[in-house]
Amino acid sequence: MSKTIEFWFDFVSPYAYIASQSIEVLAAKYGRTVEWKPILLGQVFKSTGSGPLTMRPPMMTNYYKNDFLRSARYAGVPFVLPEVFPIGTQNTARVCLWLQETAPERVGDFVRGVMRAYFSGPAAINDLAWLSNFVGSLGLDGTQVADACSDVDRKERLKQACEAAVTQGVFGAPWIVVDGESFWGNDRLPQVEKWLATGGF
Amino acid sequence: MSKTIEFWFDFVSPYAYIASQSIEVLAAKYGRTVEWKPILLGQVFKSTGSGPLTMRPPMMTNYYKNDFLRSARYAGVPFVLPEVFPIGTQNTARVCLWLQETAPERVGDFVRGVMRAYFSGPAAINDLAWLSNFVGSLGLDGTQVADACSDVDRKERLKQACEAAVTQGVFGAPWIVVDGESFWGNDRLPQVEKWLATGGF
Repeated sequence: MSKTIEFWFDFVSPYAYIASQSIEVLAAKYGRTVEWKPILLGQVFKSTGSGPLTMRPPMMTNYYKNDFLRSARYAGVPFVLPEVFPIGTQNTARVCLWLQETAPERVGDFVRGVMRAYFSGPAAINDLAWLSNFVGSLGLDGTQVADACSDVDRKERLKQACEAAVTQGVFGAPWIVVDGESFWGNDRLPQVEKWLATGGF
Repeated sequence: MSKTIEFWFDFVSPYAYIASQSIEVLAAKYGRTVEWKPILLGQVFKSTGSGPLTMRPPMMTNYYKNDFLRSARYAGVPFVLPEVFPIGTQNTARVCLWLQETAPERVGDFVRGVMRAYFSGPAAINDLAWLSNFVGSLGLDGTQVADACSDVDRKERLKQACEAAVTQGVFGAPWIVVDGESFWGNDRLPQVEKWLATGGF
């Protein structure tokens, strides 16, 4: 079984979206697989008093909105900032956890696809109807989505994942961990690659 | 006369230090020169309520301290976080402005050298004695440093530079402007290069 790299993210994070589109290819290049770790940034931000990049002072928000677009073009992925942004993603994350239990080999397709749908929008990625339809489009059983989201144990596991993130020092997304070394941000992918290639530098 | 790229920075910024060591080589590769724009981040931060990266909650500060070191290793430059950090750099910035008037061809040597000294420290880069000695080591007249720093017009110009930064939307360092396009952070150098190479993307 190959070693993994951890990819902590919220489905609503623009930079996590950009990184999500290439992280599996990068991992595979060095014999790794990706361990997707969905969390809710709203929960995680409480530990540092942080908040969404688009709710900062106007001069910062203006910069970020341009940087999202430019960083996406640089990475060669489509990007449209959703009209409704940010949104809660608790259902999206719970469906992700459910797929990790029931169809682990399809989690990457789910994550990449959901984020690309949201950031090429519009797509109501946290709505049960949308999720059911999208899961169905992957050839999986979309009729189970509502039950998967209302399951008390799974709700608890998502809560625990957010707490585990904070305990581990995660305070933003994407947060990539390679052999215990933490890298924050899509812009750290070159360093992630060097770390994978050299075993640490 | 070649076109410039603007490099807004505070002498105390770790990521500006890392970028400062290679930005002229990058600029020259595309027929550009660097227009060094020293500012005081303490002034600029007032516009967004921001502050030094090492004065954030501990989990963030711990991450940044490791990322400074790793980003420096990635760039191949030495890095030791100074024991006294951050510091005011108003004298350092004023000497930089003075050299732009009196020895413009040496400003790059001054900036690169001062920042490397501070981040390989210890070096009291804002002290008049240190500055005088360092300017002398460049073969320039270090005895004029004290007068250069106390000059009222130059103090005013530094203040105006900080105000111009905010007016232009600068809220961090390094802040690199290529043909009107703003790039924030040492980690945006790959995008800066693509912009220079392609004329915008």
